[in-house]
Amino acid sequence: MAELPELTVQGWGPSAARVARVTAGEGGEDGVLELTPDPDLRAVLPKAARRHLARELGWTPRATPPVPVREIRLAPSRLPALTRARFVALLGEDAVADDRQTRLAHAGGKSYLDLLRRRSGDASDAPDAVLSPGSTEDVVAVLRTCSEHGVVVVPFGGGTSVVGGLAGTDVDDRPVVAVDLRRMSAVHAIDVPSSLVTVGPGLRGPALEEALAAEGLTFGHLPQSWEFATMGGYAATRSAGQSSTGVGRFDDLVAGLTLATPSGVLELGSPPASAAGPDLLGLALGSEGTLGVITELRLRVRPAPRTTRYEGWSFRSWAGGLATLQRLARHDLLPDVVRLSDPDETRANLRNAAGVGARALRGSLRARRHGDGCLLVVGWEGLPTIVRARRSAAYSVLRDGGAVRLGRRVGESWVHHRFAAPYLRDRLLDTGLLVETLETAATWTALPAVYDAVRKALRGALTAPGRRPLVMTHVSHGYPTGASLYVTVLADRDDDLPIQQWLTAKRAATDALLAAGGTLTHHHAVGVDHRPWLAQEVGPLGVDVLRTVKQRLDPQGICNPGVLLPD
Amino acid sequence: MAELPELTVQGWGPSAARVARVTAGEGGEDGVLELTPDPDLRAVLPKAARRHLARELGWTPRATPPVPVREIRLAPSRLPALTRARFVALLGEDAVADDRQTRLAHAGGKSYLDLLRRRSGDASDAPDAVLSPGSTEDVVAVLRTCSEHGVVVVPFGGGTSVVGGLAGTDVDDRPVVAVDLRRMSAVHAIDVPSSLVTVGPGLRGPALEEALAAEGLTFGHLPQSWEFATMGGYAATRSAGQSSTGVGRFDDLVAGLTLATPSGVLELGSPPASAAGPDLLGLALGSEGTLGVITELRLRVRPAPRTTRYEGWSFRSWAGGLATLQRLARHDLLPDVVRLSDPDETRANLRNAAGVGARALRGSLRARRHGDGCLLVVGWEGLPTIVRARRSAAYSVLRDGGAVRLGRRVGESWVHHRFAAPYLRDRLLDTGLLVETLETAATWTALPAVYDAVRKALRGALTAPGRRPLVMTHVSHGYPTGASLYVTVLADRDDDLPIQQWLTAKRAATDALLAAGGTLTHHHAVGVDHRPWLAQEVGPLGVDVLRTVKQRLDPQGICNPGVLLPD
Repeated sequence: MAELPELTVQGWGPSAARVARVTAGEGGEDGVLELTPDPDLRAVLPKAARRHLARELGWTPRATPPVPVREIRLAPSRLPALTRARFVALLGEDAVADDRQTRLAHAGGKSYLDLLRRRSGDASDAPDAVLSPGSTEDVVAVLRTCSEHGVVVVPFGGGTSVVGGLAGTDVDDRPVVAVDLRRMSAVHAIDVPSSLVTVGPGLRGPALEEALAAEGLTFGHLPQSWEFATMGGYAATRSAGQSSTGVGRFDDLVAGLTLATPSGVLELGSPPASAAGPDLLGLALGSEGTLGVITELRLRVRPAPRTTRYEGWSFRSWAGGLATLQRLARHDLLPDVVRLSDPDETRANLRNAAGVGARALRGSLRARRHGDGCLLVVGWEGLPTIVRARRSAAYSVLRDGGAVRLGRRVGESWVHHRFAAPYLRDRLLDTGLLVETLETAATWTALPAVYDAVRKALRGALTAPGRRPLVMTHVSHGYPTGASLYVTVLADRDDDLPIQQWLTAKRAATDALLAAGGTLTHHHAVGVDHRPWLAQEVGPLGVDVLRTVKQRLDPQGICNPGVLLPD
Repeated sequence: MAELPELTVQGWGPSAARVARVTAGEGGEDGVLELTPDPDLRAVLPKAARRHLARELGWTPRATPPVPVREIRLAPSRLPALTRARFVALLGEDAVADDRQTRLAHAGGKSYLDLLRRRSGDASDAPDAVLSPGSTEDVVAVLRTCSEHGVVVVPFGGGTSVVGGLAGTDVDDRPVVAVDLRRMSAVHAIDVPSSLVTVGPGLRGPALEEALAAEGLTFGHLPQSWEFATMGGYAATRSAGQSSTGVGRFDDLVAGLTLATPSGVLELGSPPASAAGPDLLGLALGSEGTLGVITELRLRVRPAPRTTRYEGWSFRSWAGGLATLQRLARHDLLPDVVRLSDPDETRANLRNAAGVGARALRGSLRARRHGDGCLLVVGWEGLPTIVRARRSAAYSVLRDGGAVRLGRRVGESWVHHRFAAPYLRDRLLDTGLLVETLETAATWTALPAVYDAVRKALRGALTAPGRRPLVMTHVSHGYPTGASLYVTVLADRDDDLPIQQWLTAKRAATDALLAAGGTLTHHHAVGVDHRPWLAQEVGPLGVDVLRTVKQRLDPQGICNPGVLLPD
């Protein structure tokens, strides 16, 4: 799911929560896809924020509501009756749905382009039917049937892809079924001594954490899509979470998984470690449904932290902030959460913060000549004595780097609002804004150049007479060798050609970040949006190796053919 | 390279060093492969150790010297003159060798079976010629030529495989060239801010550490083969080092690499992290030369530790030791070095220790009723304040688990002798002993059962009237989810059928550890020795995926065909 800066350190109310739940397919009987436009932005953006954005972007707030659900265009299901009957025989009538509402609820993901299309009444990416298998054996049977009958399979977890991972497009225009994994969402086993949990692919973060809490454990993978995204989806897309700097990327937390493919079942991963040949588990991670469906996962968990500590710090400059994070990184002193906002993002956050505390903070920063500085949110979790030692060592490095400590209130505010941004985005789309995010990663050495290149490209592409974008960036994850950059773009939407407007900007940004040494994506995966560039990252021969593996496991090419691999 | 318990906490002299250098192909003009037998074991094993081993094993010390080098049987090179001329045209005359001495120096690795064959005068695994390319382009040209001319390629780094990784066997019996990477051993670039170093595949640990020390950096990968093994070899076999619990496995330290294949060059890895599709870098790691030759690596380095601290501890029981390590592991409190010896290994170490300190230690342990206990060596490295906090927290867990602190002298002694064991092994082979090691890993939950199963299998296979093996085991690496087991076997050698004797034991041990939930290998790779079991670990479909990838990259099947993949 897309990530937005909070635009405040004091926070937004939960007013948009219902809307987002609805967009995530949680709306119940009549609410699917219904985006209730709020004619009054006051409920979402404070006055100062609206004014600032209008001035900064050349944006005129206006009502750009989505087409009502009843008017969304949806072609009749193309699934042949014979194939449908076969699915019913395999799974039962309840597990095969081709009604309008269910199909719409499984149309596309949550990228800006997905949302634009849906808001315009276009559901051409909706599947012809939705299947809900209950076991690995069910999935194998579905894949065999689809191979025989020429039906495309799109695995569906939380539906939160922001790169077009649920496109379901096929050059041969075959019928498409979404395989919804919600019935396979159990916690099968917890091995406490080995810190391992075995789960179904449809399990969501909150349910996993609840099951683990009873054993004093936690998983700790917290992307912004946490409330909706599933374990299978995280694995298929190589997700990262807000604490991944400390906890590890999702990849690092997968000890094993079961991949059902049209050619059979792969059981991959041998915890704790093996030297028995190349890493096949790593082939399944990030495969985005192109090789089959992940039907079970073994995940690494940890004891619930005995202490957590979040803080805000401020740097006078972006360069100074990056250099200091780099010093922390090389000495293995990065906190578990690291989030350094650039001046544009910091300014937006501070300007839009409400309340007495926020005013005092702004004043204090101006007095220290940090008024155009960079906000850093850091967090530590774990055993109190270890956290204390790590924190104390990090403080030295931060202070040596010129950082000023802002205290725990700023950190706690971030924690409080960490999942709020996507809700806000849905609101902003109602008012004539382009709102999208992109992300990359680079070595510490290349990072400043990548940052400059992306900003320049986005500004070049989105600037027009009287209009310019707001490009806000933060470091979201740190590693010993480098860090990720998370970029949020706001601009006045081109009402005539909104899709073209973003495609042009995205193309420019991606070309620029790759040329400067960035990775194609740090944690959003490839999907449809990035696949034209995959060969630039792994080479044409690398793409060919992936094609060869796919051909072996999915000879009929039924597994999510629209994503990852260039045609 | 094989690992032996030190058999002492006070240590061995370096008497065997020259022998081992010679066996590793470092012997200079006339010394290649010459194993000078020492008729008197006194120089190697103290009297108490000899007596103890003889009694324990039913072993009669006797001279079993290797065949002199001049009597080793070597068939004439089968490399066609035309192919040889092509190699000379590509690489120069100096880079193409097919003399007896060079061919013998590149025959096989360092497994017990390799050594048995060589000592018996059998060099049937010697390559027909040895090539020394100087660049990725050279390697690509060699691979193309070999594909065209039907010549098998065995990459050669340090020659220290202990699983038959340099077998060079081919079902079609084609000529074989070893591609020795010693000319490609430069440190190309050091990126200090990003903690990355770019190196050639033939680089050895000592040279890398020397280059890094000048920048205040270290790499820290320290397997027992450290003096000889190469970076390319570590990557191709998924090596682990003595500090891997803290520093990470070699896999974890590879940020990128170049793989030259007969079908072209793959540039893999995008530091610091990427979500762009499946992990192709992980396909090259552990590929054991079957997909091509690794010609360059980007490795993750770190600041040289400001403090190091090694200590010995003692547990009364193996079960208590394992349970305590597991508690440390789940709270992320494992030291950087963790090495827990079982009672048999501990007893052998203590009994054979020399000097006043060792006698005092034995007495002290008996007095505490730890006489049949388990020795634990732990080590911490890093920033003093962090090490202090981690150590202090670990002390609590260790003491809660009933461990007794033995102090730094035991730890320092281990550090001093950490590379000594292979030297000793060569000596023991001169005296009628079977000496071999094997290793595995398992989750903390499965570990006790795997331990029991391996010991039972080895004892069953190697016990004969009046003779029984000594099976010594230690935990060598810890993870949150489990740990590795390193097993050393000593037995009276069957002088008539020594190879069969070990094959029977190895088969029994491998069947047993897999059945109990162990991995096929934790850090020695597959090679020839483990390939019959590969399908048990990754499944028949997993093996097929690997075959498919190999077919794409190496359609003529010239790349190290004897290893990894079952025929």
